Amino acid sequence: MQKQMMKAAVLDCPLSIEVKDVPVPEPRPNEALVQVHCIGICGSDVHYYEHGRIGRYEVKQPIILGHEVAGTVVKVGSAVTHVAVGDRVAVEPGVTCGRCDYCKSGRYNLCPDVVFMATPPVDGAWADYVAVRSDFLFKLPEAMSFEEGALLEPLSVGIHAMTRGRVKPSDRVLVTGLGPIGLLALEAAKLFGVTEIYGSDVMESRRELALEMGAAGVLDPAGAPVKEQLDRLTGGEGVDVIIETSGSARAIADTIGLAKRGGRIVLVGLPTSDAIPLDIPALVDAELDVYGVFRYANTYPAAIQLLSRREHGIAKTITHRFPLSRIREAVETARTQKDTSIKIMIYPNENE
Amino acid sequence: MQKQMMKAAVLDCPLSIEVKDVPVPEPRPNEALVQVHCIGICGSDVHYYEHGRIGRYEVKQPIILGHEVAGTVVKVGSAVTHVAVGDRVAVEPGVTCGRCDYCKSGRYNLCPDVVFMATPPVDGAWADYVAVRSDFLFKLPEAMSFEEGALLEPLSVGIHAMTRGRVKPSDRVLVTGLGPIGLLALEAAKLFGVTEIYGSDVMESRRELALEMGAAGVLDPAGAPVKEQLDRLTGGEGVDVIIETSGSARAIADTIGLAKRGGRIVLVGLPTSDAIPLDIPALVDAELDVYGVFRYANTYPAAIQLLSRREHGIAKTITHRFPLSRIREAVETARTQKDTSIKIMIYPNENE
Amino acid sequence: MQKQMMKAAVLDCPLSIEVKDVPVPEPRPNEALVQVHCIGICGSDVHYYEHGRIGRYEVKQPIILGHEVAGTVVKVGSAVTHVAVGDRVAVEPGVTCGRCDYCKSGRYNLCPDVVFMATPPVDGAWADYVAVRSDFLFKLPEAMSFEEGALLEPLSVGIHAMTRGRVKPSDRVLVTGLGPIGLLALEAAKLFGVTEIYGSDVMESRRELALEMGAAGVLDPAGAPVKEQLDRLTGGEGVDVIIETSGSARAIADTIGLAKRGGRIVLVGLPTSDAIPLDIPALVDAELDVYGVFRYANTYPAAIQLLSRREHGIAKTITHRFPLSRIREAVETARTQKDTSIKIMIYPNENE
Amino acid sequence: MQKQMMKAAVLDCPLSIEVKDVPVPEPRPNEALVQVHCIGICGSDVHYYEHGRIGRYEVKQPIILGHEVAGTVVKVGSAVTHVAVGDRVAVEPGVTCGRCDYCKSGRYNLCPDVVFMATPPVDGAWADYVAVRSDFLFKLPEAMSFEEGALLEPLSVGIHAMTRGRVKPSDRVLVTGLGPIGLLALEAAKLFGVTEIYGSDVMESRRELALEMGAAGVLDPAGAPVKEQLDRLTGGEGVDVIIETSGSARAIADTIGLAKRGGRIVLVGLPTSDAIPLDIPALVDAELDVYGVFRYANTYPAAIQLLSRREHGIAKTITHRFPLSRIREAVETARTQKDTSIKIMIYPNENE
Repeated sequence: MQKQMMKAAVLDCPLSIEVKDVPVPEPRPNEALVQVHCIGICGSDVHYYEHGRIGRYEVKQPIILGHEVAGTVVKVGSAVTHVAVGDRVAVEPGVTCGRCDYCKSGRYNLCPDVVFMATPPVDGAWADYVAVRSDFLFKLPEAMSFEEGALLEPLSVGIHAMTRGRVKPSDRVLVTGLGPIGLLALEAAKLFGVTEIYGSDVMESRRELALEMGAAGVLDPAGAPVKEQLDRLTGGEGVDVIIETSGSARAIADTIGLAKRGGRIVLVGLPTSDAIPLDIPALVDAELDVYGVFRYANTYPAAIQLLSRREHGIAKTITHRFPLSRIREAVETARTQKDTSIKIMIYPNENE
Repeated sequence: MQKQMMKAAVLDCPLSIEVKDVPVPEPRPNEALVQVHCIGICGSDVHYYEHGRIGRYEVKQPIILGHEVAGTVVKVGSAVTHVAVGDRVAVEPGVTCGRCDYCKSGRYNLCPDVVFMATPPVDGAWADYVAVRSDFLFKLPEAMSFEEGALLEPLSVGIHAMTRGRVKPSDRVLVTGLGPIGLLALEAAKLFGVTEIYGSDVMESRRELALEMGAAGVLDPAGAPVKEQLDRLTGGEGVDVIIETSGSARAIADTIGLAKRGGRIVLVGLPTSDAIPLDIPALVDAELDVYGVFRYANTYPAAIQLLSRREHGIAKTITHRFPLSRIREAVETARTQKDTSIKIMIYPNENE
Repeated sequence: MQKQMMKAAVLDCPLSIEVKDVPVPEPRPNEALVQVHCIGICGSDVHYYEHGRIGRYEVKQPIILGHEVAGTVVKVGSAVTHVAVGDRVAVEPGVTCGRCDYCKSGRYNLCPDVVFMATPPVDGAWADYVAVRSDFLFKLPEAMSFEEGALLEPLSVGIHAMTRGRVKPSDRVLVTGLGPIGLLALEAAKLFGVTEIYGSDVMESRRELALEMGAAGVLDPAGAPVKEQLDRLTGGEGVDVIIETSGSARAIADTIGLAKRGGRIVLVGLPTSDAIPLDIPALVDAELDVYGVFRYANTYPAAIQLLSRREHGIAKTITHRFPLSRIREAVETARTQKDTSIKIMIYPNENE
Repeated sequence: MQKQMMKAAVLDCPLSIEVKDVPVPEPRPNEALVQVHCIGICGSDVHYYEHGRIGRYEVKQPIILGHEVAGTVVKVGSAVTHVAVGDRVAVEPGVTCGRCDYCKSGRYNLCPDVVFMATPPVDGAWADYVAVRSDFLFKLPEAMSFEEGALLEPLSVGIHAMTRGRVKPSDRVLVTGLGPIGLLALEAAKLFGVTEIYGSDVMESRRELALEMGAAGVLDPAGAPVKEQLDRLTGGEGVDVIIETSGSARAIADTIGLAKRGGRIVLVGLPTSDAIPLDIPALVDAELDVYGVFRYANTYPAAIQLLSRREHGIAKTITHRFPLSRIREAVETARTQKDTSIKIMIYPNENE
C-alpha cells in the first residue's frame, strides 16, 4: 500500500532548508494525527537553522523543525479516548516517559527520556501533519484561536517561570529581554494577577510593545545605569522578582543588584558563555533565590484556563504570517529582522 | 551612684585587642542582663580582628566582639515576664524591629533595622555581662550545657540552610567547607533526618572530624576532580542539595556541576570576590535552585527542640577553651591554626 | 489641662447604643492619631450589638465598636517616622506583640496577645478619632478612596483565604455565602488572577451582585441539589477550591462533596454550632485539605498593591452610608435588612 | 502449551478463603514477574475478608487479597530495563496511568485509573507470584530484609502523612491509633527527625510497643480526658501535628481540641460513619489545617533512603508469621486478636 505524502520543511544542514514531500506519519495506538493549522518559529529553531546545534544537541541528519503547534485531529490510534477526530487542539511538544522519578513527582520537564519535537534527532512539525501521543493534546475552547493555541507553547515557559519564581499577585516584577518569551512572560505575570510589571530591552520597538501589552514601565539597558532607571520607575521600592529571558551575560549579572532583599530571580534565557560572573556576596547578603527554568510542566491546562473568560493580548506578539512554502523567507526574517519581528507564524496547510 | 564595672575584650583597631574595665550594661525595661558563661569565636570575629571590616561593616571605634553566647539571667527589666533571674539561657544576638514587612512576614533576618551583636558599631559579648531584649533569650533545658547553648548560634545557620534549601530526610546532601559552620550544617542535616551526607574540605583533620560526626563519606577538593570523587561515593546518584559554607570561589563555581538535575544549592559562605563565574547554561538546563543564606530566623526554639531527647555531636566542634583574660591568644589561635582548631570557646567569668 | 472631647458610638449593653462625648485618645510615642473618615459595619459588630458576645468574647462594660477604618493622620507620637500628619491611611485593627513565636514566624494573626479593635474589652473606632500604633497604618495611594481604604479590612480576609487555600490563577473557585466577606473573597480571587469563580447564596439580590462583580455563575442552595447545580455550571469539572463564608452548617457540610479530588476547602464563616457533621471518609478518600481562616496577616500592603493600576469593584459592596449620629439606624439596617444591605459605611466626622 | 500453576489464597465470599491452584501470571512487555517472599496482612484485607466490601469497593467475584509485598524478580518482560532477574524488590501495589493531570502533577495516588492490588476486582499477591509493571518495583539494598521491604507499603502511608502534614523535625507530634499504620507513622515521624512523639491507643499492649519504638509518652483515650493527659505530657505546650490513624469517631472529633493554635491535623484512619461532628468554630479560631491522606505517592525511593544507614525499628511491628497454607488462621488472627497482633506476615513460597 502506498504511503500518503505531505509537505514538510526539512533542514539538511545549517542555512539549508527546503520544503519536501515526506510520508504522513502513521499514529500509533495511543497517538493522534494532527493536521497542523499553524506553528510558530522559536528562537531555538532559528538557532538550529543558523548554527546546526544548541549545547549538547546537534543536527547530524536532516530534521524537521518547529514545536509551537495547533491544529485539528484527523485520525486517532486505537487506544485513544481523550480526543476525537475534528477536535481543535494545541500540542505540547515534549513526550515524557511517565515512569521515572521526575515524571512521577510532577517535574516531568526534567525527564531524561523525554522525546521533544525539533530537538535533534527528533522531528518537529513544520509540516502538514504531526502524530502526537494523545495525552499531550489539549482541546481548544471555542473562543480560542489556533494562533493562540500555538502560542500556548512559549506562554508555557512564562507560566512555568511564574510558578518556579512563586510569583504572587502583589509582587513587583521585572522582565528582562522582551522577545517572544519575555513578552509572553509579561503576559503570564498579568494572568497571575500582577499589576506592576516592568520590561527591559535594548530595542525600542520591543519596549513599546511591552508598554502596549500592559507594562507599567520600561528600561533601556543601553541607557542610564539600570538600577537608577528601575529606582526611578518604582520610586525606590525595587522589584520582588526578576524574570530574565534575554540570555545576555550583562543582564544576568545585573539581576543580583536589581532584586529586593529576599527577592527571587528566575533565569530563563540561555547565555552563550558558561562563565557568567555573579556577585555572590550580594546574593548571600540579600538572601536571594535564583531559579533555573527548563521548558515547563503541567502548564497547558493551566494556560487554557488562564486565558479563558478574560481579555488578553498574547496574539499581539505575532508580527508575521507565512505559508509553509515560504519557510526560508520566514526563518530568514526571524534571523535577521529582530527589530521588527517578534513571533512569526507558519501555516502549513494553506495555499499562498 | 557609681556604675558597676566588668571585664570586656575591646578591639581598638585591627590586631589590637585588650581586656578592659567597662561599665556593666543596665537592662532597659524589656531587657535582661545575662552573666556570660561561655561565648564562641566566630569567623566574622576573627575577620574584624584581622582586617577591621567585612563588606559594608567597618570598625571605626573600639568594639567588643563575640555573639555566640550562653549564660545566666542575673537581672531583668521591669517589663520582662518571659525569663527570670537564675534562668540558664542562650542568646539570639540579632534584635529586630518587629514592625517592618520582613519582621511581620517571618523573615526577620532581613530586617533593615536589626541591631546585631559584634557587627560594627554594635558591641558583642566577649565580656562578663550582656543586656539583651528578653524575647531573644531562650531557656536551656536542664540536659543542655552552656556550651551547647552557645553553639545554637552557629547551628542556627545550619538549620536555616536546611529550611532555605527545603531539605527533606530522603535527600542526599553535600556540605562543602568543614569549618564550624560546615560541621554544624552537617549536624543540622542529621537533625533533619538526612542519612546520606557528604563533606568536602581541603584539610584532612576536618574531613576526619566530619566522618566522626557521621558523614557518609568525604571529598578532598585538592585531589581528583570533585565530580569524580562524588560519583564514586554516591554510586553515580549525585546529591540533591549542596550546602556551600567554604566561601571558596572554586567551591561555589563547582556546585552547579555537582547537583542533580532539579537539585538545590544553598550558599552560606561569603567569598572575597564579588564576581564568581557560574555556569548559567548548566544551571538553567538542570533547572537548579540557588538560595542565599543570611544569618537565620526562628531557629532557636527549633534548635532546642531538635537537640532534645536524642544524642548528637555538636559539642565535638569545640577544640579549644580559654578564659577571657587570654582572649588575644584565643583569637590568634583561631586566626592562625585552622588545621587544628574548629570552635574556640571563651569563658568570661572564669579565673585562669 | 482639659481633655479634648469627641463623638463616639458607645454600646452599653445589647441593642443599646448611643453617641456620646468621650475624650480624644492621646497617641503614645509609637502611635498616631487618625481622624476617621469612614468606617464599615462588620457582621461581628452587629453580633455584639445584638447578642453582647461572640464565643469567648463578651461585652462586660460599655464598648465602642467598629474596626474597618480609613482616615487622616492628625497627630503623631514622638517615635513615629513611618507616617506623618496629613497622610491618608487605612488602619489594620489588630495590634500584635511582635515578640511571640507566631509574630516572629509570620503568623501574627495567631498572636495570643493581640489587641484587636472592637473585640471586648478593646474599643473600636465608631468615633471621630482613633489612636493606632504606626506600623499598623498604611498610606493610601492617591487613586484610592477612603471607602476603598476602609474595605481593605474585610478584603484582607478574602486575600488571606486565597493565601491559606494556596489559590492559583488556574483554579476553579466556589465562594459559598455572598455577604460582604463572600463578595470580597470573590473579588480577592479575581485579584489573584482566577477567571472562573462561582458564588452561592440563598438571597437572589446577593447572587445578582456576585454576577455583576464578575462571578462566572451562581447557585441557589435552597434550590436543586447544589452538587447538581455546580456540575451543570462547570460542565462536570467541579471546583478546586471552596471558600466558605456563610457559616451555615449545611454549607460547611456540603463543601466535602463539592470539592474536586485533591481539592481545598477554606473555612471562613463561623457557624453557631460547635458540632458540624462532616463526611470524613469522603474527605480522606478525596485527599482534601481543609484550612481554617482567622482574620489575616500581611495583607494590607498586598491589598494596596493588588488594587493599584487596575479596575476593580470592591466599592460595589457598599449599599448604605450613614453619619455617625445615625449609628443606631445604621446598625439596625445591617441587622434586619440582609436582603438589601451588604456593606454599610459610617462617616463620623460628617454633618448630617 | 500448558500454563504453569501456583498457589494463591482466594477469597470467594466473606469469611471463605482457601488456597487454590491458579495460573502463574505472564508478565507483559513492561512487567516483571516477582516470586513473593513475604506479604503482610493489611486492615483492608481483613475488612474485605470479613465484610466483602469497603465503601464503594465490593468483592463481587473471587479475589486474591494482599498488597504489602517483597520478593525476587524471576522473569522480565521484553521492554523491562529497570530491574533484572535475581533482583530483590519491594512492590508498590498501585499501578497508575501516568497520563492524567494527577499523575503528571505528582499526585498519582489520586489517579482515577489506578489499578490497585487487592482492591476489587483487582487481584493482590497472597500467592507464589505476582506480575507488576517494572516502574513500580524498587530494588532493596543488601542490608534491607524482605520483611522490611514488605513493610515499605504501610510505612509509605506514614511517610505520606508526614509530607501532607508538612511535618518538620522541630514539631511535636501526636499519633492517635497505634495499630500497624499508627506505629509506622510514629516510625516515619522519627525518620523525619521528630524527637517528641506521643501515641494514643486504648490497648495497653500497643501503647507499650509505642514506648518501646521511641514514643516520648502515651495516652489512654479511655482514661482521663485526653486534653488533660496530653497537657501533662507536654507541660502544656500541646502538639503541632496530629496524625489520626484509628478511624475512631471520637478520636477524630478530639483532634480539633488537641492541636496547637495554627496546628495541623492529618486524617488517615477511615471511620465507619460518614457524619463525624467537628468543632468548626474552634478549627477556624485556631486556624488549623486538616489534611486527608489517601494512600501515598513517591514514597518508595524516599522510604528506602530514609531507612538506610541508620537503626530503626519498623520490623518490631511484625508479631506473627505464617506460611500461605495457613492463610485462614493468619487472617483470623488479624481479625480477632487485635490486642496481641500488629503486623502479620505471610510467606507464600515457604513449606510449613
